[in-house]
Amino acid sequence: MALESNGTVGTNGANTLQSICYNTGSLKLLDQRRLPLENPYLDIQDVTDGWNAIREMVVRGAPAIAIAAALSLAVEVFNVEKSFSGSSNDAASFIIKNLKYLVSSRPTAVNLSDAAKKLEDIVLKVSATTEKATSVFQAYIEAAEKMLSDDIADNKAIGSHGAAFLQSQISVNKKLSVLTHCNTGSLATAGYGTALGVIRSLHNEGILEIAFCTETRPFNQGSRLTAFELVHDKIPATLIADSAAAALMRAGRVDAVIVGADRVTANGDTANKIGTYNLAVSAKYHKVPFYVAAPVTSIDLSLSSGEQITIEERSPKELLYSRGGLGEQVAASGISVWNPAFDVTPASLIAGIITEKGVITKNGTDEFNIKDFIQSA
Amino acid sequence: MALESNGTVGTNGANTLQSICYNTGSLKLLDQRRLPLENPYLDIQDVTDGWNAIREMVVRGAPAIAIAAALSLAVEVFNVEKSFSGSSNDAASFIIKNLKYLVSSRPTAVNLSDAAKKLEDIVLKVSATTEKATSVFQAYIEAAEKMLSDDIADNKAIGSHGAAFLQSQISVNKKLSVLTHCNTGSLATAGYGTALGVIRSLHNEGILEIAFCTETRPFNQGSRLTAFELVHDKIPATLIADSAAAALMRAGRVDAVIVGADRVTANGDTANKIGTYNLAVSAKYHKVPFYVAAPVTSIDLSLSSGEQITIEERSPKELLYSRGGLGEQVAASGISVWNPAFDVTPASLIAGIITEKGVITKNGTDEFNIKDFIQSA
Repeated sequence: MALESNGTVGTNGANTLQSICYNTGSLKLLDQRRLPLENPYLDIQDVTDGWNAIREMVVRGAPAIAIAAALSLAVEVFNVEKSFSGSSNDAASFIIKNLKYLVSSRPTAVNLSDAAKKLEDIVLKVSATTEKATSVFQAYIEAAEKMLSDDIADNKAIGSHGAAFLQSQISVNKKLSVLTHCNTGSLATAGYGTALGVIRSLHNEGILEIAFCTETRPFNQGSRLTAFELVHDKIPATLIADSAAAALMRAGRVDAVIVGADRVTANGDTANKIGTYNLAVSAKYHKVPFYVAAPVTSIDLSLSSGEQITIEERSPKELLYSRGGLGEQVAASGISVWNPAFDVTPASLIAGIITEKGVITKNGTDEFNIKDFIQSA
Repeated sequence: MALESNGTVGTNGANTLQSICYNTGSLKLLDQRRLPLENPYLDIQDVTDGWNAIREMVVRGAPAIAIAAALSLAVEVFNVEKSFSGSSNDAASFIIKNLKYLVSSRPTAVNLSDAAKKLEDIVLKVSATTEKATSVFQAYIEAAEKMLSDDIADNKAIGSHGAAFLQSQISVNKKLSVLTHCNTGSLATAGYGTALGVIRSLHNEGILEIAFCTETRPFNQGSRLTAFELVHDKIPATLIADSAAAALMRAGRVDAVIVGADRVTANGDTANKIGTYNLAVSAKYHKVPFYVAAPVTSIDLSLSSGEQITIEERSPKELLYSRGGLGEQVAASGISVWNPAFDVTPASLIAGIITEKGVITKNGTDEFNIKDFIQSA
């Protein structure tokens, strides 16, 4: 696959920070916990390194997690392959066992389990047609690498669909001010981003007035990562405390809210970073349209509604110490904490779901018809 | 006035942390910026010290600010008095000039400007009846000291009115779970607290299930101060990120939201810490009653509505660095920031205003009649 001159797979241009630096047999992940002050890369040599990186939030964002997991196994496969003495079935078993292990690092992330399922299907198919373990391994590596390049292409499609749609829906004669939450940019994906990809496209087309980003407590993905990307790309941007969003909307300063998704269910309910639902409720009250931007892989048709999504709770440390639990103590000792990783925004609060295949709307009805959209896309 | 054995004016019991330690001629303020890790006291010797302490948020909370300001001048007056050679009018002018200076430290805080006005009236009245500067100074010191003891008595009345009212409104057979924002406790007042005073009273009467407190970004008054008080008083409590409030309400875990007020206008619109409005919007959406607890001194009948309130913007540093701007960098360098100190919650979102004179409700109408309440109270 195409390599840039620095030996890493190309994302969206030489000036964009890369969180996933991959070359066949080698994977480095930007340790995003240390942004914005440093940007050290961690060497990922096997699935154990990959599992830890996902679990410890070295890498984050649903698409990036899936790709980082797949590529961590690709590196392990590359190294194991030379000395592997088993059959093609043994190779497939080896890969499938490791995919299951990787999925266990973040059970809520549907992109991760979907990716694992697809990769599993590929290796099973190949192993059924050959005795050679090498063929299975090669097929796996190619498929994992394709996920990386496909993700970038998908994000650019999400960005252009979203920008065109927003312009058609919201405004004729003015630039748009958009509020986003968490990080859905180059640092959450293989490159460009989903919700932040739409903002990038709006900016590239000269129709973005300003991007507002929330801090996104408790892990500060907004102030650390999204703000970092927006400053880096010279996109006009302003950071606000999560709790200031309602006041900002009341002041008439937000034309649309665009967020990413960890998982979208068949009816359009959306699990995303804690605080997303809070923004959706505020947007509804202020009659500001609320959009979800996510690749089709984030849609899980096996779940009929958000009630079926299990919400992870994360460590109290994220609220008790700065830098998401890594820094100095900021809260009173001995206080209990409720720290859900995600919340679920009901489809009733969502005006549209922006995907790489186009924008899913309710077409004047009260409900999304996501199944039909996917079948016809 | 009554002194405790440690030489400080009594607040609400020996076990409660005191933020204002006063003895005639001496004032120490707890530097709340350094909680919860340390609790150092700053010596306040004159109005310049008082002005700086308010401006730099050593002391915070509308009632505490007013009292700290008044007492800082009481200490200066105590020291100046001995060598003062002017008339009673000169003494009054000296006091009034310094009151104006103190008010300039936080122009939005109506308790502060109201307190200054009352103290000004007292010294003008006394100076008109005597030639002796000492009488004016003594009258000032006594009036400032009375503010301190009155505030504690008022808070306890707010607490008991609020607890009785909530019990009557919300529930017959269950304990109440209450969400609060910012700090309105012993650390924001002379003692006991307003919204937190209601929570203390609910707990003392055995009808509090749990108190939820928000972090209250960007200055973390909730995680640093409210959590500190709740743990100290052994009140069952859980800390949440500001943005998790909507998800908590959706889960049915909040029976009421109670917040303090920086200023309440004649129609009931309420200026309070940024994020209050966000909670009020969420509470409305989830049909959770939203209450304001504040002394009558927070009500400013000269303003007909919240639109007349000027919102201060505070330093971007509060979002860019931990500990409200004093700690390590947590956000990307170069990002712009919108950091309003307060927001305004419209009366339409408020179910009741809990004061020391009783609870102001809409009596089944769409509007509060605050003027009548105050006149008849």
